[in-house]
Formats: sequence, structure tokens, C-alpha cells
Amino acid sequence: MAKSYSLTGYYKENEELWLWDDVPELEIEIGYKVDQLLHYEKSSFQEISIVETKGFGRMLVLDGTPQVTTKDGFIYNEMITHIPLTTHINPNKIAIIGGGDCGPARESLKYKSVQQIDVVEIDPRVVEVCRTWLSGNAVVEQNQRMNMIYRDGAEWIPEQHRLYDVLLVDRSDPYGPAMNLYKPQFYQHVFNAITDDGIAVFQSGSPFYYSHVLRETVLHLRTFFPIVRTYLAVIPSFPGGIWSFTLASKKWDPLKADLNRLPSRETKYINPETFRAAFDIPNYVKELLL
Amino acid sequence: MAKSYSLTGYYKENEELWLWDDVPELEIEIGYKVDQLLHYEKSSFQEISIVETKGFGRMLVLDGTPQVTTKDGFIYNEMITHIPLTTHINPNKIAIIGGGDCGPARESLKYKSVQQIDVVEIDPRVVEVCRTWLSGNAVVEQNQRMNMIYRDGAEWIPEQHRLYDVLLVDRSDPYGPAMNLYKPQFYQHVFNAITDDGIAVFQSGSPFYYSHVLRETVLHLRTFFPIVRTYLAVIPSFPGGIWSFTLASKKWDPLKADLNRLPSRETKYINPETFRAAFDIPNYVKELLL
Repeated sequence: MAKSYSLTGYYKENEELWLWDDVPELEIEIGYKVDQLLHYEKSSFQEISIVETKGFGRMLVLDGTPQVTTKDGFIYNEMITHIPLTTHINPNKIAIIGGGDCGPARESLKYKSVQQIDVVEIDPRVVEVCRTWLSGNAVVEQNQRMNMIYRDGAEWIPEQHRLYDVLLVDRSDPYGPAMNLYKPQFYQHVFNAITDDGIAVFQSGSPFYYSHVLRETVLHLRTFFPIVRTYLAVIPSFPGGIWSFTLASKKWDPLKADLNRLPSRETKYINPETFRAAFDIPNYVKELLL
Repeated sequence: MAKSYSLTGYYKENEELWLWDDVPELEIEIGYKVDQLLHYEKSSFQEISIVETKGFGRMLVLDGTPQVTTKDGFIYNEMITHIPLTTHINPNKIAIIGGGDCGPARESLKYKSVQQIDVVEIDPRVVEVCRTWLSGNAVVEQNQRMNMIYRDGAEWIPEQHRLYDVLLVDRSDPYGPAMNLYKPQFYQHVFNAITDDGIAVFQSGSPFYYSHVLRETVLHLRTFFPIVRTYLAVIPSFPGGIWSFTLASKKWDPLKADLNRLPSRETKYINPETFRAAFDIPNYVKELLL
């Protein structure tokens, strides 16, 4: 880009500020014109910013990469949460690693059976910034069922034993501190942290741009879990749109879920049809999973 | 961008050539680094170029907008073609408006019942450039069932009466000459051009970025056709990834198609599961179609 700006991922051109999301391996860049840079700080872990854009509304940006937006954040949050919480017939205790924006927590609260949600977030500043700038977060945090734990998920997980019915791994891409959430021993710790009929779900990358991330996630999980199923969603603010999640389960199979349990009236993406359709994978993605 | 280049959509920065695909209404830009500009010309209708990129391989670019790439072109081509050709139980005579890259024609040739494919392309130079630079086109054109017609689809269509079993409207976005393929009378002419049990399919835009295009297409088609169904595919080189097609039919319903007719062994995206799943629409898109 023309003229570098001092903040990672941002560039100024002709008096306009743009945020650039890169796929460096493929030499692709996606730019969003920033109407307003609402917040910027360097926390102990990362650069955190909040911007207002025309295309996606308000965005949470970490180290220059968009994480969640007000216009399409519902897709990621619904798809990482409702598939496991509908599949498990009585989810009671939930843990969410990452997800300081509290989006998956908000979706989890829609289930009456859920009594405790532990959100394990490495960076308290992410939670505070989201509370200030993204609507609804404060309400979620104040819910009595919520329990915020400010720790590194990779260090926290080995201490948990057969505790959680559903564990959501809302990890960012495999760079920087999130790297530890992609190591073989992490998957084993997740297996140990959930109950004997527990379910874990992992953000597993773009099957088009980062197919190795998906493939490695699935291969690791298959060594521990009897049921491993990849499903897809389309998230327009993520490069290429198509995105994968991988569900690993000790007992319950999402293909046999009772979809009457899905709170479809309160969702904007998922419904019984898109729940099922998410597991219908194009041939080119199927080949990755062989 | 930094420094304008003389070709629409291309910019040069630090000795690198980049192609920029804009969504101007939303102030979003997607950039592809060009490893090689293989071809450029101004035809009587548009600027035509072929570039080599790392992320998407070879791309056909018209007036600065990527149309089809060697890495993900199969998705668009399979999804616009196989849904109607599997839905119609005996497709014999096919017409394709647009699609000078011959991708939908190539997919249509996989059906033995198909005896004639009329490709109606306004710009003969597109066909010639694709023949030179995109592999496989020459083979398709030489097939005896193929018939190239170099005319404006909007002028050609009123002359056709009850002729085609399946008509594919492989139109580009509603700018410039393609505008005529979005007018109310065009949909009426399409209705008249197909047989009494005929099917037409239209590229109907991104339900996320250009929801008005999808909505208007569906509303127009509903005034003429008894069966109108929108389906989705994910095309990573299109902005936001999620893309819509709308099928309009006089008799055959894709939801009741015999999926044994689908040549799944020769496809990379569509299979019986993704055929069905394409009609399972997220709630936020369903609302557009009410």
C-alpha cells in the first residue's frame, strides 16, 4: 500500500484510513475503508482496535486482523455455538476458550439447561474494549451464569478433568499466542477436560485458503475422539467466505441431533435446514478430509 | 491506491502489479497480486485481460472485474449448470446467455441427453481470448453439439419461442451492457423462449452485498413462473464468498429432482448432498425472499 501507518494493518491514503486484511501466502489483500477509528491500544498481548466501516459496521480488530463485526458476527457465533449445544441433549456446564467478545457466550445463554459458562480469555483488555464498544456485551457478562477466567487457554486446559459438557475453542488463526491451541497435546487436554458424553468444537480455518489447518485439526482429533465431523458456514468478512468448524464428540452425533432443541426463532443464520446443510460438504473439501 | 495504471482495475505499487476488485457501495476492495499480465486488449465491448495470480491461478478479467479463475471457476460453472440439468428429466436443447469462457457449456456436455448447446455471447473476443489462455475451451467449442452465436442476449432472446429445455443466464453484474439482462421484459422473454416444461437459471448476485439484485430477480420471476427457487454456493473469488442463483421453472421442481442423474464423479463441488443443501437458506437470506 501507499503509505504505512503506525498501527499494524492500517494504512493512510489520500487522507483516508484503510484496514488491510492479508492472506500473505496467496498474495491477496482485502481492504475496508475506516469511517472512524473508535479505539486503539496496545495491550500486554496484542494491538486491539475498534473501527466503524460501511461494509461491516463496527469491527473488533486484533493485530490488524478483523475478528468479529456487527454485520456478520452472528454467523460465526451461531455456528460455533448452536451445533454442539443442540447436539448434546443436556448441556449444563460450558467452557469457551477465547471469544472475549462474548458472542458464543451470548448464544449459549439461549439454552435453559446451561447453568455455567466459563469464558477463558487470555486478554482482559479485549473483554473491556468489547464491553465499551460492542453493544450487548455488558448484559452477557452480568448474567449470573457467566464466569470470566482471565488465563491462557493452553495453560488452563490441562487442569480441567471431565468437567464440561461442551467446550468451544473460539481460537484465532494459528499465529502468535494462539499457536498453542493447535498443538497435538492441546487436543488431548480438550478430550480430558470434557465429560464422558462431552462435545468440543474448534474453529478450523478456511478449507479453501488454509486447507492444511483443517486437515491437521481433523487428523489430530481422530486420534482421540470416536465422532469427528467438519461443518461449514459462510462468513463474508473472512477471506473467501467459506469457513470450517470441526466438532469432536465422545457420544452424541450432530447428524442425529434433535433439531427441535434449536432456538431458531432467536437466530439469523442457523435453522434446522442450515444446521443439516452445514455438514453437506463439497467434493473438493471432502477430499481434504479423507 | 497509490499510483493509477492505465488499465481499468490495475494498479502498480513498488514495481508490483495488483488487480483490485471493488465493492464501491460498501467501501471494500479485494486485491490480487498479478504474477503476470498474460493478455490485455480493448474489444468493441470491454477491456479483456488474462492474469496469472498465486491465490486463484489464471483469471479472466472484464473491465477490471474478475469473472472466472482456474482455481475456483468450477464452483460457479457446476452450480449454474447441474442444478437445472439434473432437475429437467430430459434436457435436450440448451441455451447459455453469456459465459464466453464456455464453462457452463463444458458442464452441460456431461449430459448424454443434451443434443444442442447454443452459447449466446456478445463479445467474440472473450471466446477467442479464453480459447488461447484457459485450457479446455477449444475442446468444448469443437464439440459437434456446440453452436456459438455472437449476439447480444437481450436482442436475441425475443426471437426465441418455446425452443429450449434449459436456459442458463450466465450474466455479469448489473452494470454496463449486462443491464439489459436485468429488465422486467427480459424475464418475460426468457419465459417465452423455453419449452412448456422448461427451466431457466439466473446468476442473481451476493445475498450479503447486493441483496437488492437477488430480491428484484426473484420478484420479477415470480410474476411469470410457477416455481421460483433461490439456491446458494460459496465462490471464494467473489466478494464475501456467498453467492445466489435463482431457478425458474414451468414444471420440474429441483427439490424433487432425481439426484441419480447428477454426474457426481465428474464434479469437484456438487454432489447429491450439496445439491440439496444449496436450497437450505440462512434466516437472513430467507427474509429477503419473503
